[in-house]
Amino acid sequence: MTVSSRLSPAATDSARAPQGAGPAARLSLARRAVAEAVGTGLLVAAVVGSGIMGERLAGGNVGLALLANTAATGAALLALITGLGSLSGAHFNPVVTLADGFGGDLPWGDVPAYIVGQMTGGLLGTAVANLMFEGPVFSWSRHARAGPAQLFSEVVATFGLLLIIGTCARRRANAIPFAVAAYITAAYWFTASTSFANPAVTVARAVSDSFAGIRPGDVPGFVVAQLVGGTLAVGLVRWLLLRSADTGRDRR
Amino acid sequence: MTVSSRLSPAATDSARAPQGAGPAARLSLARRAVAEAVGTGLLVAAVVGSGIMGERLAGGNVGLALLANTAATGAALLALITGLGSLSGAHFNPVVTLADGFGGDLPWGDVPAYIVGQMTGGLLGTAVANLMFEGPVFSWSRHARAGPAQLFSEVVATFGLLLIIGTCARRRANAIPFAVAAYITAAYWFTASTSFANPAVTVARAVSDSFAGIRPGDVPGFVVAQLVGGTLAVGLVRWLLLRSADTGRDRR
Amino acid sequence: MTVSSRLSPAATDSARAPQGAGPAARLSLARRAVAEAVGTGLLVAAVVGSGIMGERLAGGNVGLALLANTAATGAALLALITGLGSLSGAHFNPVVTLADGFGGDLPWGDVPAYIVGQMTGGLLGTAVANLMFEGPVFSWSRHARAGPAQLFSEVVATFGLLLIIGTCARRRANAIPFAVAAYITAAYWFTASTSFANPAVTVARAVSDSFAGIRPGDVPGFVVAQLVGGTLAVGLVRWLLLRSADTGRDRR
Amino acid sequence: MTVSSRLSPAATDSARAPQGAGPAARLSLARRAVAEAVGTGLLVAAVVGSGIMGERLAGGNVGLALLANTAATGAALLALITGLGSLSGAHFNPVVTLADGFGGDLPWGDVPAYIVGQMTGGLLGTAVANLMFEGPVFSWSRHARAGPAQLFSEVVATFGLLLIIGTCARRRANAIPFAVAAYITAAYWFTASTSFANPAVTVARAVSDSFAGIRPGDVPGFVVAQLVGGTLAVGLVRWLLLRSADTGRDRR
Repeated sequence: MTVSSRLSPAATDSARAPQGAGPAARLSLARRAVAEAVGTGLLVAAVVGSGIMGERLAGGNVGLALLANTAATGAALLALITGLGSLSGAHFNPVVTLADGFGGDLPWGDVPAYIVGQMTGGLLGTAVANLMFEGPVFSWSRHARAGPAQLFSEVVATFGLLLIIGTCARRRANAIPFAVAAYITAAYWFTASTSFANPAVTVARAVSDSFAGIRPGDVPGFVVAQLVGGTLAVGLVRWLLLRSADTGRDRR
Repeated sequence: MTVSSRLSPAATDSARAPQGAGPAARLSLARRAVAEAVGTGLLVAAVVGSGIMGERLAGGNVGLALLANTAATGAALLALITGLGSLSGAHFNPVVTLADGFGGDLPWGDVPAYIVGQMTGGLLGTAVANLMFEGPVFSWSRHARAGPAQLFSEVVATFGLLLIIGTCARRRANAIPFAVAAYITAAYWFTASTSFANPAVTVARAVSDSFAGIRPGDVPGFVVAQLVGGTLAVGLVRWLLLRSADTGRDRR
Repeated sequence: MTVSSRLSPAATDSARAPQGAGPAARLSLARRAVAEAVGTGLLVAAVVGSGIMGERLAGGNVGLALLANTAATGAALLALITGLGSLSGAHFNPVVTLADGFGGDLPWGDVPAYIVGQMTGGLLGTAVANLMFEGPVFSWSRHARAGPAQLFSEVVATFGLLLIIGTCARRRANAIPFAVAAYITAAYWFTASTSFANPAVTVARAVSDSFAGIRPGDVPGFVVAQLVGGTLAVGLVRWLLLRSADTGRDRR
Repeated sequence: MTVSSRLSPAATDSARAPQGAGPAARLSLARRAVAEAVGTGLLVAAVVGSGIMGERLAGGNVGLALLANTAATGAALLALITGLGSLSGAHFNPVVTLADGFGGDLPWGDVPAYIVGQMTGGLLGTAVANLMFEGPVFSWSRHARAGPAQLFSEVVATFGLLLIIGTCARRRANAIPFAVAAYITAAYWFTASTSFANPAVTVARAVSDSFAGIRPGDVPGFVVAQLVGGTLAVGLVRWLLLRSADTGRDRR
């Protein structure tokens, strides 16, 4: 869950190796992919389900609905990352998985299974939420989310998310569940797009015609913006964590 | 508080043995059962009491009432599991106790006393809440909670709860108070049933004719759904945590 | 901050001895009493100030005002106990100080200075809050809080608070800031009295004629109820933590 | 991030030395200043952005808007301090940087770069928030915040902030992200000024004509009040932490 391990080998802490006993102790890839699917599924169920519940109970006050949606999303992230973090790393997000691939923390061969797990789990999560609230299993969202301000918001949202993950992973890996949950809680309110910041969640939200939905046609723009934001953060974190020892200069 | 100890013996950490000095240091069963009763009682008092207060003060906005009910429930869980976790394990929930029984973490002989403590404590908690708000000690709830969507919601809610507990217990036992509190905070909003996920709490909520109540006739369905959800989670956690070493294959 | 040290000597952890180097490293009593005064003062300022702000901004919705009041109080407790816990123990509450006195964790000779600090600091906190919101420095509250349900609520509220503190102190002392903040967050909503649970705070709230106030004539009843609740909790915690080794029986 | 290291040398813990390997392992000043800029920028974006979003969605209820603004600000602080704390100390606040300078925790030579980073980052954060919500990059705020009660509120707010940081830094450095986030969450509601408590954030909020803004003419008064509050806290923390060993008396 970090892009920094090449830069600072000492940063490899126990939270990285899920079983605490070297690579050989890792869960099989199939199990880790299922963990990603289950985690992303419950995350999406929380996002979509609490959006429906929030809108139903808020009496027309969108602010109150979003507050409930925010609380549920942040709390679900905290619970799911805490629980599944030691199994698969609890990415639940292709941008995070790609960053780990680039950073050398996840073998490239594992990346496709992670992303398939996330995408599949996300769609299942939408279906579960829709069924819990007596809607159709899937229905295209009609919620328009487009324009430069929305796309810029997704760049900012994903930049911040990957910055938090990348910097926490070095020395505060145990705090990642809190930091990520808190970041998304904030970003739901400080970005104009309510911070999707996650391609798997974005796709899954396209098939629920409800509060948290997004029109299918708006998905590609969001995903591109998320990749741009993630890339910027990975670059910044890599530079920030570059030690003086690595450059032979620059130490004040 | 886990189903995993047979699978990964190394997971036995200090948070399991309440007194940190082996089985001999455990509190007596009577004390642990009382701890379960007191904890479940205060949890139910929080659920029922904050439901009454929330409805009274929300000025007719159900969303606001549920937000207060959610905050109080999540916060009570965090406080009570933190405090009583080292005494009895802080199950407060027969499904969790049964899962611990199946997983070998709690002797089967202790299970009945735990469940009796939880059921008794839960009913006392309802009485305390009703008295604090000047209602009758007990009154049958008229709050209908039935139908496939409600039952499916309870399956999902309890599945998620046992998944979180089962995965946390392996390597993040100290984080269980936060993870469980956060999970229930989320599930209040993302399930259509507001996530009872607990037979003792369900029964106790049947005897308060208030915001958090449930019609007595709807209780059995909820309990069955909770047992189904819990069983699914126990099975998944068992599979997820099965190490390659145990299967002799499956390691990528 | 515990009543249990006599029962389980091993429970003495670093969080108890503020400077980690035995009794000799304790701060002087004067400094600890000032820490209690400053902490109680800021706590009361948070309770009273956020009550005024909440009522002003909530547009007549008492539920929203109490939600803001709750968030501010819980958050202030978390910050203040985390910061000042290692100095004075961060009691901010005469009932907690008395429980520590009875439990042998605080010398009886220190108790009066602690309580004087708490009472003085609490009154200063009210003055600060009143001045920040352009009110008179002190004014008698006209907020009626009386009757059996209110008093019973204070018994329950203080019982729960001392139960959480007493059980956390044994093995999870570092979690006390979270557990206490979470407990009060819950108790604001699940008790009919909004959980004063603290004689110093109760007295201080009598001199602000605002949202969080209490009529001076209702103070004595609240204080007695708080002492009753605290005493019940101290007794229960003492029994719960009594080890088999101490009784020579009762081990299952 | 503390004023106390001179007083209690033993308090130097790993959280102070960002790289855990002595001064030589510190990041270069340029990197630390950039970390301060990025962190302050995202913090201000969270403050300003969530203010705009909160006001838009709250349907005219200022209490609800401030609740969203509070949740986003507190959560952003938790995430950003957790992530960037091990890089630069995560001050994001000139008053904190000055306190560290006076306390000997940060070389005076590093102070200007920190403050320039904070001021620059803060302004960039406002620009980012304004652009995300389709406003002009910068616009003077017309939000009046003046008068003795507002200034006194800023003294109190900054006093409390520096008190929390100064006391946490000694023995609970890992808890600083939680303590600071919680403190500001509370102070948004218990001070009449909604607790700016930070000159860099104050200046940055002057150039957004939105919910969180402040008239440029009101900025100097706020900054002076913040410096007064910070100075008082630094003095109090210094006295509180003065050990008996240092005075040769005063030990009870």
